[in-house]
Amino acid sequence: MSGPEGPDVLRALWSARSVAIVGAGSRPGTPGRAVVGYLRRYGYAGRIVPVHPTATDIDGIPVWTSVQAYPGMVELALILVPAAAVPGAVADCVAAGVPVAIIGSSGFAETGPDGRAAQDAIVSAARAGGMRLVGPNCIGAYGVPAGLVASFSPMFSGPRLGTASADPGSEPDAHVAPGTAVDGVAENRRRGIGFASASGALGFGTVSLALDRDLPLIAAVSTGNEADVSALDVLAALAADPDCTALLGYVESLGDGVALRRLARAAAVRGVPVALLVAGASEQGAVAAASHTGALATGTRIVDGALAQLGIVRVSDVDDLLDAGDAFALVGGGGTGERIAVVTTSGGSGILAVDEVARAGLRLADLAAETVAELAGIVPAYGSARNPVDVTATVMNDRTLVRRALRAVAADPAVDAIVVCFCVLVGDDVGAIVDALAEARTEHGKPILVARTGADALAPEAAAALRRAGIPSYRTPARAIRAAAALHRATPRPLLATAATAPPPPVDHDVSFMIDGVSPDKLHDRRPEATEAVTEGALKAALAAAGVRVPRGRTVTSADDAVAAVADAGGRAVLKVVVPGLLHKTEAGGVRLGITPDRAAETYRDLARLPGATGVLVEEQVIGGVELLVGVASSPLGRILTIGAGGVLTEILDDAAVRLLPVDAGDVREMLAGTRAARLLAGVRGAPPADVDAFVRLVLAVAEVAERWPGDLDLNPVVVGDHDAIVLDAALTAPARPEES
Amino acid sequence: MSGPEGPDVLRALWSARSVAIVGAGSRPGTPGRAVVGYLRRYGYAGRIVPVHPTATDIDGIPVWTSVQAYPGMVELALILVPAAAVPGAVADCVAAGVPVAIIGSSGFAETGPDGRAAQDAIVSAARAGGMRLVGPNCIGAYGVPAGLVASFSPMFSGPRLGTASADPGSEPDAHVAPGTAVDGVAENRRRGIGFASASGALGFGTVSLALDRDLPLIAAVSTGNEADVSALDVLAALAADPDCTALLGYVESLGDGVALRRLARAAAVRGVPVALLVAGASEQGAVAAASHTGALATGTRIVDGALAQLGIVRVSDVDDLLDAGDAFALVGGGGTGERIAVVTTSGGSGILAVDEVARAGLRLADLAAETVAELAGIVPAYGSARNPVDVTATVMNDRTLVRRALRAVAADPAVDAIVVCFCVLVGDDVGAIVDALAEARTEHGKPILVARTGADALAPEAAAALRRAGIPSYRTPARAIRAAAALHRATPRPLLATAATAPPPPVDHDVSFMIDGVSPDKLHDRRPEATEAVTEGALKAALAAAGVRVPRGRTVTSADDAVAAVADAGGRAVLKVVVPGLLHKTEAGGVRLGITPDRAAETYRDLARLPGATGVLVEEQVIGGVELLVGVASSPLGRILTIGAGGVLTEILDDAAVRLLPVDAGDVREMLAGTRAARLLAGVRGAPPADVDAFVRLVLAVAEVAERWPGDLDLNPVVVGDHDAIVLDAALTAPARPEES
Repeated sequence: MSGPEGPDVLRALWSARSVAIVGAGSRPGTPGRAVVGYLRRYGYAGRIVPVHPTATDIDGIPVWTSVQAYPGMVELALILVPAAAVPGAVADCVAAGVPVAIIGSSGFAETGPDGRAAQDAIVSAARAGGMRLVGPNCIGAYGVPAGLVASFSPMFSGPRLGTASADPGSEPDAHVAPGTAVDGVAENRRRGIGFASASGALGFGTVSLALDRDLPLIAAVSTGNEADVSALDVLAALAADPDCTALLGYVESLGDGVALRRLARAAAVRGVPVALLVAGASEQGAVAAASHTGALATGTRIVDGALAQLGIVRVSDVDDLLDAGDAFALVGGGGTGERIAVVTTSGGSGILAVDEVARAGLRLADLAAETVAELAGIVPAYGSARNPVDVTATVMNDRTLVRRALRAVAADPAVDAIVVCFCVLVGDDVGAIVDALAEARTEHGKPILVARTGADALAPEAAAALRRAGIPSYRTPARAIRAAAALHRATPRPLLATAATAPPPPVDHDVSFMIDGVSPDKLHDRRPEATEAVTEGALKAALAAAGVRVPRGRTVTSADDAVAAVADAGGRAVLKVVVPGLLHKTEAGGVRLGITPDRAAETYRDLARLPGATGVLVEEQVIGGVELLVGVASSPLGRILTIGAGGVLTEILDDAAVRLLPVDAGDVREMLAGTRAARLLAGVRGAPPADVDAFVRLVLAVAEVAERWPGDLDLNPVVVGDHDAIVLDAALTAPARPEES
Repeated sequence: MSGPEGPDVLRALWSARSVAIVGAGSRPGTPGRAVVGYLRRYGYAGRIVPVHPTATDIDGIPVWTSVQAYPGMVELALILVPAAAVPGAVADCVAAGVPVAIIGSSGFAETGPDGRAAQDAIVSAARAGGMRLVGPNCIGAYGVPAGLVASFSPMFSGPRLGTASADPGSEPDAHVAPGTAVDGVAENRRRGIGFASASGALGFGTVSLALDRDLPLIAAVSTGNEADVSALDVLAALAADPDCTALLGYVESLGDGVALRRLARAAAVRGVPVALLVAGASEQGAVAAASHTGALATGTRIVDGALAQLGIVRVSDVDDLLDAGDAFALVGGGGTGERIAVVTTSGGSGILAVDEVARAGLRLADLAAETVAELAGIVPAYGSARNPVDVTATVMNDRTLVRRALRAVAADPAVDAIVVCFCVLVGDDVGAIVDALAEARTEHGKPILVARTGADALAPEAAAALRRAGIPSYRTPARAIRAAAALHRATPRPLLATAATAPPPPVDHDVSFMIDGVSPDKLHDRRPEATEAVTEGALKAALAAAGVRVPRGRTVTSADDAVAAVADAGGRAVLKVVVPGLLHKTEAGGVRLGITPDRAAETYRDLARLPGATGVLVEEQVIGGVELLVGVASSPLGRILTIGAGGVLTEILDDAAVRLLPVDAGDVREMLAGTRAARLLAGVRGAPPADVDAFVRLVLAVAEVAERWPGDLDLNPVVVGDHDAIVLDAALTAPARPEES
């Protein structure tokens, strides 16, 4: 959900110049009191406004009886009072003109219906007063450069993290914020990564890991129940902050897709790379399974498809999320190609890297002959001058050779990024190697990622030295390759015009709509108005009007007309019973193939006898070609397009690609490439290749016309021949009402 | 490759009581000199025997001019002289009666044909003298409890690792070896994990990571070129060591499968769990792709299938290898069920754990109603009393509640293992939680694995405390779940009788063999003797003799006989041309379906006209059923069985399971469960379920008879009906000669 304000107001979550802690008494051990302590310890330079009905001061900071009582502007409030007192605190904040409040208190929607009602009430109150709400039931937010600890995570009671390396002067992208040195620590970095998490505990656990590995975090926000502001909303707001260079998020829901689209758009504007850990994807986005399209469009496929389409990297674990963050922070994101050169001191690491290149969907760079020749002059006979380039441990002992080898690889135009693998690095090795890597990085500007499969304790300074050179390092070759894949995939882009600027159309789950009897060119204007399912003939007429090829034919209601229609269809026809609401005609015995005029009347009478029959559709029989499925359906994220194998293969292959609508030809081709459908189209067992262009055109036409239809459209099979594509079977069904979650 | 000696001789690699360092002069900076220093620094209590032609002593240790010159017994030699001097050193060791020598020197097979010849020569010399060789071109071995550093890995020049926790008295499984305290470090542990690696650099990098995380390693051996002893040989020897509790390995080849079988047998005897990181699997084991079986039996599928069959865990990265090692070391392996209870303080971690349960092939335990009721009395309303059990952070503040919740879950008979997820743990939290976990672990004996997604620095003592309680901890929920999956899968078992006790039969790649004209019951005695491919009719006769159902029919050589044969086959037959050596009859226009007696003569004449035709096979036409593929082929690991979808689906699905031969019914059912074939057999689109038992019987009969055949057997399709299974098409082809690697 998102409120009426623009996203910029959320910037207070990490950069407010004054923060009220509502519920900060003088009794030690309470969360409010603890937060005041954290703010001081982390050197927050803004105004701290403790609010408590009876306390007078906390360590010399005056306590106010209400937010309104404080005479200055409060840019952010953290509410930490019991649930029953939250409405009063919210009203106080609204009255004081606070733009954003974080409600840490639990006791709301997570406890049941009463809690949900209480939550709805505070959201209404906040919205009416123009205030955004984060939470309730969250752990708060942390603005790192400002030391703005608006959070009661136990993390802040432990030793301070993320202050280890801190040699900002030699970090190319590090800019320094003034005046926040604390605890003998050097100044924080002002630019870096924004992080948002739906889970407080897991989120701040991840933050602690991020700081521990010296990830340049600028903001971390937990969103709890997401009554008003979601993690995706926070990320969209972060994307617009000029100090934000990359985004990481943990989310348990992509909501209704609106915030996701807004995030993609905001990230695209500034080219900010985004990686998301989406938990529980298989449980969400379940589409009605009555249609084939529905069964294929699993939650996982919808999430994968939507993120791929929007250029957002999807990772599957916390390690991978932070690994991507390191790559984004040190290398940047977007535009890195897929051709990887592997340079290794150990054959084993090289093989592991190559294994992962294939798994991660990247390619091994095909080094130029000159590069290989140059490397052959550097690498010993027992190494390898080809990719993966095994320079051997011997070469790594010679600073000159290391430089020459790295330069040769970096200069090759066929190389987009370099993954350099070491194992044990000890003391003296490190300096020379880091210098050589830094030189190659500077000279050619290509991303370099290091895999260092050895204990940190053997060369404790290596990671920080590499980091200063703009080179992220990872524990294993596979992790370095996956980080390179994140760089490749992180190219945020908005959805195409309509869906990117408007929310998806409302879906009515109770009704289908009527096409029959409506002139196809009027169809787009029709609104849902009937519970009756549309007939196949009418649906095909509508598709034909949209430029989609369907078989010649018509619906008949007499045996005589059936004979004439078979002749009109070319003398060999398919007859299908018309039964409004019947989805699986074949299983009901309602489809007859290869009917000639002499058998048309008899076949008509057979079919017309089936229960509920209102007519018989007579169509030309199309033979040959590859059978695919094209579906358009509603999902929690909006209208989606599904492509997969058709006919009997649909269920057997259970392989499909999904995208949000609208799509363009590039999207459709990417969908094909991600499924077995591509293999079918290329020709199996010596069959000629099918007309992919015709199929893509058909899909685009279907997607455009069906985006605004309210039901699930199931075209199966769509037959793709060597010079055309045609819809053989079409059904439009009312989607099942999604389960309440 | 393996020599004539039993594996026990290899035990010297980690527990020799005397070690010669051949090439240890007094000049600092040489590898031999360094190794002598490592041995002393690591407190090696055995005899150190430096060997060098001119040096007289190293830091007071006398240097000998040859191994033979040393008057005592040398149990292990580490040869570190230039390649040209290695043959002399090997001869010296053989003459001195050294049982095992490690050759660290490079300059052998890795450099080209000359080096390979030199390597072959030293192997011959060693074998003739009854000495086993490790290497050449390896980094050596490390016996951890003994401080036996027979390695020049740079790891040993850095700070000493693996001595951090060291409170052996309170570790339940830690036994202490006498007298090896060094550098103020407590005594090493005597029992633990054995590790072998084909890669030296990556291997000792992994060792450094293992020691750094306090994995109880007892041995690490790198095997380099594996001229005599492979990493698998070392692991098999370690499996027989009573002090070895688990095995980890990095391998780049499974060799000819003999060492793998031996390892599985040795591990099964003592119930030692094994995890292997197999690099480059997709490149190895490539089977000839002339047959469908060949194309399906990819290297990855062969490796996956063989390891699954042998109960060896396959992991895909170094992190996962060490994670499995922690689980093995602290929990043990084998027999852990697949039903996982997740107990979490954070909803987010619970969802991530559940996501991975599905990916890892485990199941969420279905908690008993009483368990849920008991948990409902402990867990707050905003938590969850169902699996995943979200006890919330609040419960974790109350030691009593934590105990009660863990006890309730551990006591549930539906639970096989528990994964407990925390995020940030700080100072005071740790003690109470560890106590509660340790209590549950002791009381019910079920494996408990912890995911702790927070910086170590916040609770630096937590991991060691959990370790002392026999509880491994991991950074993320997904990693903890994967470790639980490793416990579940690690049930080493030998192959069935024949293949486990004998090497696979020799394969002659040049010849196929002749069945035609041989009485089927004599077929098993036939040896390869002809280059002519066997005809389909003869092959089917052989299969029929083995109890496999094939269509009724016979090969005819005249039109008249064709007519009679069609009548004999039931009046509706399939006619197939017989062309020795022709694999793809259908594509050559050599197959005609649905032939009745009146069309038999004409069809016979058509087919007999095809080039090379020697007759026509007439068979009853079988209609209906599910088409599968069954193949038996030779692979680098020995004869393999492949099962997948048949007919046109073979290529489209590209989905198959592979196992080493011999197999039993359980193996075949597991293969089915791992492929789409199971879905086909269960009945697609309302088709009746097929007769799985009949199919399993057919596969077992085929596997038994074809195990000793020298060619690739390709049965495609095998049609499985609702009460039988029958081979419709059969071909036996000479396998392509594998590429030299």
